[in-house]
Amino acid sequence: MTAPDVITSLQNPHVKRLVRLRTRREREREGVILVEGARELSRAVAAGLTPATLYTCEALYSPEAREVKSALPGPRLRLSREAFEKVSGRENPDGLLALIPAPAPRLPEPHGDAVIVVLHGLEKPGNIGAILRTADAAGAAGVFVLGRGADPYSPNVIRASQGSVFSLPVAALGEEEALAWLAEREFTRVACTPDAPQVYWDAPLTGRVALILGAEHEGLPPEWRAAELPVRVPMHGAADSLNVATAAALVLYECLRQRRASR
Amino acid sequence: MTAPDVITSLQNPHVKRLVRLRTRREREREGVILVEGARELSRAVAAGLTPATLYTCEALYSPEAREVKSALPGPRLRLSREAFEKVSGRENPDGLLALIPAPAPRLPEPHGDAVIVVLHGLEKPGNIGAILRTADAAGAAGVFVLGRGADPYSPNVIRASQGSVFSLPVAALGEEEALAWLAEREFTRVACTPDAPQVYWDAPLTGRVALILGAEHEGLPPEWRAAELPVRVPMHGAADSLNVATAAALVLYECLRQRRASR
Repeated sequence: MTAPDVITSLQNPHVKRLVRLRTRREREREGVILVEGARELSRAVAAGLTPATLYTCEALYSPEAREVKSALPGPRLRLSREAFEKVSGRENPDGLLALIPAPAPRLPEPHGDAVIVVLHGLEKPGNIGAILRTADAAGAAGVFVLGRGADPYSPNVIRASQGSVFSLPVAALGEEEALAWLAEREFTRVACTPDAPQVYWDAPLTGRVALILGAEHEGLPPEWRAAELPVRVPMHGAADSLNVATAAALVLYECLRQRRASR
Repeated sequence: MTAPDVITSLQNPHVKRLVRLRTRREREREGVILVEGARELSRAVAAGLTPATLYTCEALYSPEAREVKSALPGPRLRLSREAFEKVSGRENPDGLLALIPAPAPRLPEPHGDAVIVVLHGLEKPGNIGAILRTADAAGAAGVFVLGRGADPYSPNVIRASQGSVFSLPVAALGEEEALAWLAEREFTRVACTPDAPQVYWDAPLTGRVALILGAEHEGLPPEWRAAELPVRVPMHGAADSLNVATAAALVLYECLRQRRASR
């Protein structure tokens, strides 16, 4: 027996809408994002976002979902297991999925020797998410995502970032706009590129740094590669052995190390 | 029309065997591993392994597969697209899959200030693979994989490592055996653990280092956490924001940096 206020039909308008919103185009048309999972939703709410609707499925609750669900704001609708699995983007959903008005782009407010990460043309959600997670851990002031291919609020990026995308300022910008923003605030552009003469740990990274990363195969276009301070990560083994998110972590933490050492 | 020497039937014994070999138990029973993909196979062959059988599907070849296929040794069998897709473990197979006799465990032969990575109880293939990839890039002397849960030659680890698992010495060992091996060769055991008083960049990492990493949630058991040199990666943001493979990369490259700086 299912309680009468539980949505069970796969033809229900809510279910059909949520399935439609899996595409970026539909999300942009409606101006919403989909946030799934206890941890991700907690971070979104902690960042001041409020679900337009929170969809729940008790039968699927993980222990973490059971713990956080009452603290989540916004109107709720209950879904049957079958309906929830239909709208979920995950293999093992935890019973929490929210429709949230798309957050406005958050530009960083840098002070002192802030570090900003600029992602140029990255498309793999796993890489973007991993970099957002590390940028948050390393205390970066923000992340710019350039290029049409990348949507920092796609469900896969949100998931790979474990919700970090909500914890620090993230903005999808045009190239010109990003360059102007950085120049105006006197950021040194540090591009991570395999043909740079200088190894990252030998480069002076204590001032305002914009760390620029390109896609693993295409790399950076000339106008970005010609950064003020190109750096490379030394590599043994095969040339393609370093993942872009790993390279990002190394340079971000070298920025931290040099800041601590210089104090 | 399919050529007569192409395997098309999903009931063919080769097809059924390959599907069976997806489980670790079956692979161990037969003493084989499955290696899929042009890059992964190239690295396995470069490391001296020879396929017992190479299964190919021309209709699925990627440009890279088309390029490397002739250089791959061993007897071949052709599969129809449907049959290949049945035996493949990938969403987008590239038409190359080999059955290879399981490589013997390769113990490192450390000289000078070698770095060895010890993975304790890690189970996520993505994390193990990413660490193998970074260990290869950072020129580590080898990787020990401890614990029954982890199979360094599972198809998912091979894939996540992009074949790096074949490029450096990797051995699945028991805990006692690993501890004895490291002690005999005078490795300093450096455990990466969030409650360590010392930050990794302040620790002396220039001698022989065994970098010990535990699973993200469970962490290391007491006998490993009580390493000679516990270190932590400093974190802003949420406490769980660093992935274990990211932490591994940071400490591995700090070992490199200190070695360069000390020369």
